[in-house]
Amino acid sequence: MLREDVTEAIRAAVFEELAAVGYARMSIEGIARRAGVGKTAVYRRWRSKLHLVLDVVSALAVLGLPVPDTGSLEGDLRLLYEVTSRALRHPVASQIIPDLQAEAARNPDIAEAMQKTLREGQEGVASKIIEAAQRRGELAGNLDDDLAMDLISGPLYWRSVVIRTPKLPKGYLAALARGTTEALKAL
Amino acid sequence: MLREDVTEAIRAAVFEELAAVGYARMSIEGIARRAGVGKTAVYRRWRSKLHLVLDVVSALAVLGLPVPDTGSLEGDLRLLYEVTSRALRHPVASQIIPDLQAEAARNPDIAEAMQKTLREGQEGVASKIIEAAQRRGELAGNLDDDLAMDLISGPLYWRSVVIRTPKLPKGYLAALARGTTEALKAL
Repeated sequence: MLREDVTEAIRAAVFEELAAVGYARMSIEGIARRAGVGKTAVYRRWRSKLHLVLDVVSALAVLGLPVPDTGSLEGDLRLLYEVTSRALRHPVASQIIPDLQAEAARNPDIAEAMQKTLREGQEGVASKIIEAAQRRGELAGNLDDDLAMDLISGPLYWRSVVIRTPKLPKGYLAALARGTTEALKAL
Repeated sequence: MLREDVTEAIRAAVFEELAAVGYARMSIEGIARRAGVGKTAVYRRWRSKLHLVLDVVSALAVLGLPVPDTGSLEGDLRLLYEVTSRALRHPVASQIIPDLQAEAARNPDIAEAMQKTLREGQEGVASKIIEAAQRRGELAGNLDDDLAMDLISGPLYWRSVVIRTPKLPKGYLAALARGTTEALKAL
């Protein structure tokens, strides 16, 4: 394998290992085995399991979700929810996110990497949607940004990651976008 | 120690051990040590670590949150959020919940116990609040109950457990109750 291919094989193996056994039970041995490389190949690139996971989580942040631009707050939210719900339904995401969340409660480095990923991913897009709605006059200029983020991100996360309903009923995302739009207008 | 005191000491130790090291790393030895009892005392009561945790989680469900009765949807939500945010701020809750959530992604028994606890706890109270608002004519009789639960429970969970802000700003819960009321009325 080429040098870069080895790096990518290890990164992919980290995701699969995280989903399969979780952070606490994951080992460098298991990752190396899954990637089809030796343990030294992993240690040459990352000092520890923690550094490896931090690197992989940070890499997710820069992937960047598309910023919707439908011309209305409700339309933008609807599109954001479609992209997010597809991402959260992915089995790897639905196992890795709660797992890293749990580790974040004990490990400030993981907590910080997760926050950064959230801010630059989901919350980054949400804040651009809010700014556009404020420019159009749909939302108040002085609303509480953090509360707006919670209203936008919370319900779908609760449904997909906490309650874990395998399939959303027809019309769910449209109704969620409608409800959230009204919530934001009331701020 | 009396028989019942031993049982309670073990239950308390499970919570502390879960918060300290998490489900994956938790051992019967560690629990017994923390409870100040022998390993046999634990195994005499519960077959395995999994059974012990399931029992402790199920016990939480029957504790029962108070059902607010302020006469208005916004007032009831405000009160629910005050009780919930206090519970979620407890360090034990903020470490144990994400941890069990992560285990639930891999273990259907834990997932089922968590669902049951949520349904009978937070969601049980939320559905009573919705029914009361429907009786008063504040909400439509045919709204999507599941979506209503997500709108009520998601934002505060996102803020307290995912984003993990240590302290909520002044006026946050009141504004959250106002926004959520409008979201529910739009369903």
